[in-house]
Amino acid sequence: MTDETYKPGLEGIIATETALSYLDVDHEQIVIRGYDLIELANTVDYIKVAHLLMEGHLPTSSEYDAFVRTLNERQTVPDQIFSIMKSLGPQQHLMDSLRTALSALATFDSSLGRLDAQSTAEQSLTLLARMPVIVANSYHIKNHEAIVQPRADLGYAANFLAMITGSVPTPDEAQAFDQLLTVYSEHEMPNSTFTAIVIASTLSDMYGALVGAVASLKGTLHGGANEAVMHMLLEMKTPDQVAPQLLAKLARKERIMGFGHRVYMKKPDPRAMLMKESLKRLVAIKGHQDLYDMCVIGEEVMQREKGLYPNLDYYAAPVYYLLGVPIELYTPIFFAARTAGLVAHVREQYEHNRLFRPRVRYTGPRGLHP
Amino acid sequence: MTDETYKPGLEGIIATETALSYLDVDHEQIVIRGYDLIELANTVDYIKVAHLLMEGHLPTSSEYDAFVRTLNERQTVPDQIFSIMKSLGPQQHLMDSLRTALSALATFDSSLGRLDAQSTAEQSLTLLARMPVIVANSYHIKNHEAIVQPRADLGYAANFLAMITGSVPTPDEAQAFDQLLTVYSEHEMPNSTFTAIVIASTLSDMYGALVGAVASLKGTLHGGANEAVMHMLLEMKTPDQVAPQLLAKLARKERIMGFGHRVYMKKPDPRAMLMKESLKRLVAIKGHQDLYDMCVIGEEVMQREKGLYPNLDYYAAPVYYLLGVPIELYTPIFFAARTAGLVAHVREQYEHNRLFRPRVRYTGPRGLHP
Ligand SMILES: CC(C)(COP(=O)(O)OP(=O)(O)OC[C@H]1O[C@@H](n2cnc3c(N)ncnc32)[C@H](O)[C@@H]1OP(=O)(O)O)[C@@H](O)C(=O)NCCC(=O)NCCS
Ligand SMILES: CC(C)(COP(=O)(O)OP(=O)(O)OC[C@H]1O[C@@H](n2cnc3c(N)ncnc32)[C@H](O)[C@@H]1OP(=O)(O)O)[C@@H](O)C(=O)NCCC(=O)NCCS
Repeated sequence: MTDETYKPGLEGIIATETALSYLDVDHEQIVIRGYDLIELANTVDYIKVAHLLMEGHLPTSSEYDAFVRTLNERQTVPDQIFSIMKSLGPQQHLMDSLRTALSALATFDSSLGRLDAQSTAEQSLTLLARMPVIVANSYHIKNHEAIVQPRADLGYAANFLAMITGSVPTPDEAQAFDQLLTVYSEHEMPNSTFTAIVIASTLSDMYGALVGAVASLKGTLHGGANEAVMHMLLEMKTPDQVAPQLLAKLARKERIMGFGHRVYMKKPDPRAMLMKESLKRLVAIKGHQDLYDMCVIGEEVMQREKGLYPNLDYYAAPVYYLLGVPIELYTPIFFAARTAGLVAHVREQYEHNRLFRPRVRYTGPRGLHP
Repeated sequence: MTDETYKPGLEGIIATETALSYLDVDHEQIVIRGYDLIELANTVDYIKVAHLLMEGHLPTSSEYDAFVRTLNERQTVPDQIFSIMKSLGPQQHLMDSLRTALSALATFDSSLGRLDAQSTAEQSLTLLARMPVIVANSYHIKNHEAIVQPRADLGYAANFLAMITGSVPTPDEAQAFDQLLTVYSEHEMPNSTFTAIVIASTLSDMYGALVGAVASLKGTLHGGANEAVMHMLLEMKTPDQVAPQLLAKLARKERIMGFGHRVYMKKPDPRAMLMKESLKRLVAIKGHQDLYDMCVIGEEVMQREKGLYPNLDYYAAPVYYLLGVPIELYTPIFFAARTAGLVAHVREQYEHNRLFRPRVRYTGPRGLHP
């Protein structure tokens, strides 16, 4: 045991080897199996990136069609899952509903205990296929609306958005939502991915690993930030309120959601910059110029005052908003998009497993007797 | 980022500071807030140790009574939780049921989103109080038996065991079960505790942190080992079968459940030695000398062949067995007992929080373009 190595929050500590992704801060590039995430988000769709993450390469056009077909075949969620979601208590955040639904879903998968490459590949496809159905319906169930079913005639992103809003998105909207899913798809070793591989390392099953990741992503320092950002923007109401309110928050030593990142910290998050462009395009089509202006002012204030840059959640929030997504779905959708990366990490963990079991620095007393 | 620091499984890496417990391998002592766990297990009951972990000190006699009263008042589990457990699918391991039940229980706690010391203390008591009710009934529900309710006239351990077996335990049985709960109560930074604090570090809620810990504990390299040990012992049937079957397994490069431990590895686990004594006492009362003999032979073979010592799960399994506990409840009971330690770690994390966010060593390709 080497006490020297203690870094709070495991900052800078290498936790694992992975061939999936890497934040190359020096070159300001998010590497996804060798590709630049931003280039992927600008040129291919989410399903292609999911295929890249899960199968190891971008799909040929026939692989693409087969992948889509497989996902369509696996979308049906057992009715019991919806009844379980309906039985939840009043304190329900939709991440609680998602966490419970995934935990219950495990018990309907006959391959649950099998951790071999073939079984976990199947489990991964089932999870990715069902995620939009579960996430969209968590909202409808909480709001006492009818269960909605997926439409096989729409693409993955368009169907997902249609299940949420109740209307088929325009091509521009579908494309913006697809790009949002892509930038959320994978990001090296954030807390939720780390949680998933830590759990998987006990040789627990893939569902359990993902359930833990939902619990992690719910936190406001992680996925929960996108919802907090939108509440903050709505509270600020107009562009002229942004600077004074941010300054007041900073004076009270509050943490401003949507800013900062353990790895980038003093550099821009390339995903945030892409979402900023997406927001600009959406505003040009749909209006709400004020929202864009507010975001830009906030960005400037935080850079000037704290030297902090926006992270993905900062610019994803207003994009979600203009797409008509209810705020409480922002984090569950982040999770749905991240499923592609998570299942790939869990499978990688099983392939070269070693139990995660760190040590502690003990700060309590010694030598007591009852 | 310092590539040098990569230790697979974070072996020997200090992940956090804690005043709760410490494995002092040099002195072969498990330190719990300054006390020796084995001394505690021999002199005080589980509830006192839970109080020590959760409140910071061993209770005075009036604190003890108040603690017991508080737990009794909080035992009632909402009916919806039982209906959710009844709706689960056929692949259900009782850890899946427990994980789902805890996840759902979150939505019935009106203080869910509050992470202050007072709220999390209340949440901790509620969780500890309800654990026996949920765990015992996970078994009854799976076996289509009636829901059983706790009995306030029995102590925590006696009531827990009675809810499982359907009959009030003898004082010897109650004491053995109580001691089992105590040795399982806390153990520094195993995978499940690590999972819980990693999740809590996003400022996600206590329920979510515990849900992740259930997922972790389910794995066979962790809590799941106690069930695997019992299946192995039952398969071996008689003492003369132990050596040949173990040797055959080792020849097939199989991992023998119940042996080895990241931290002790080449030293005995003091908890295993205590459970060995407990098993001896139970055998003297209840018979099954064969079971004891099998365990001892297994211990000898593994030490001779691999230099490996039994861990707690090895000797806990036959103790559970002689107490009449169904095998599929071994890991859920481990979790119930560990709740006292887990909630204390989660509260400690909130007190001095820093987000867990490690890095990776990237082993994939670079420079690809779509
Ligand atoms: C993401 C985050 C947790 C990473 O933080 P970290 O690596 O653990 O860094 P720390 O929390 O130790 O913060 C370092 C310093 O920057 C400050 N800081 C970091 N993010 C800040 C923010 N969003 N607002 C205000 N100050 C912030 C901290 O207060 C701290 O200052 P100090 O040294 O004077 O105390 C952090 O930036 C944060 O809380 N951001 C807001 C939540 C968010 O947007 N999360 C989504 C991330 S994708
Ligand atoms: C608990 C455990 C995961 C800790 O292991 P770890 O620190 O990660 O150590 P490793 O898995 O790297 O094992 C180190 C070596 O000991 C061997 N080993 C460890 N435990 C073993 C076991 N139970 N049976 C056979 N070999 C074992 C490994 O095969 C490995 O040998 P190698 O170096 O020749 O490959 C491991 O001992 C184990 O799997 N035990 C069985 C499961 C169990 O009882 N878990 C409950 C723990 S409380």
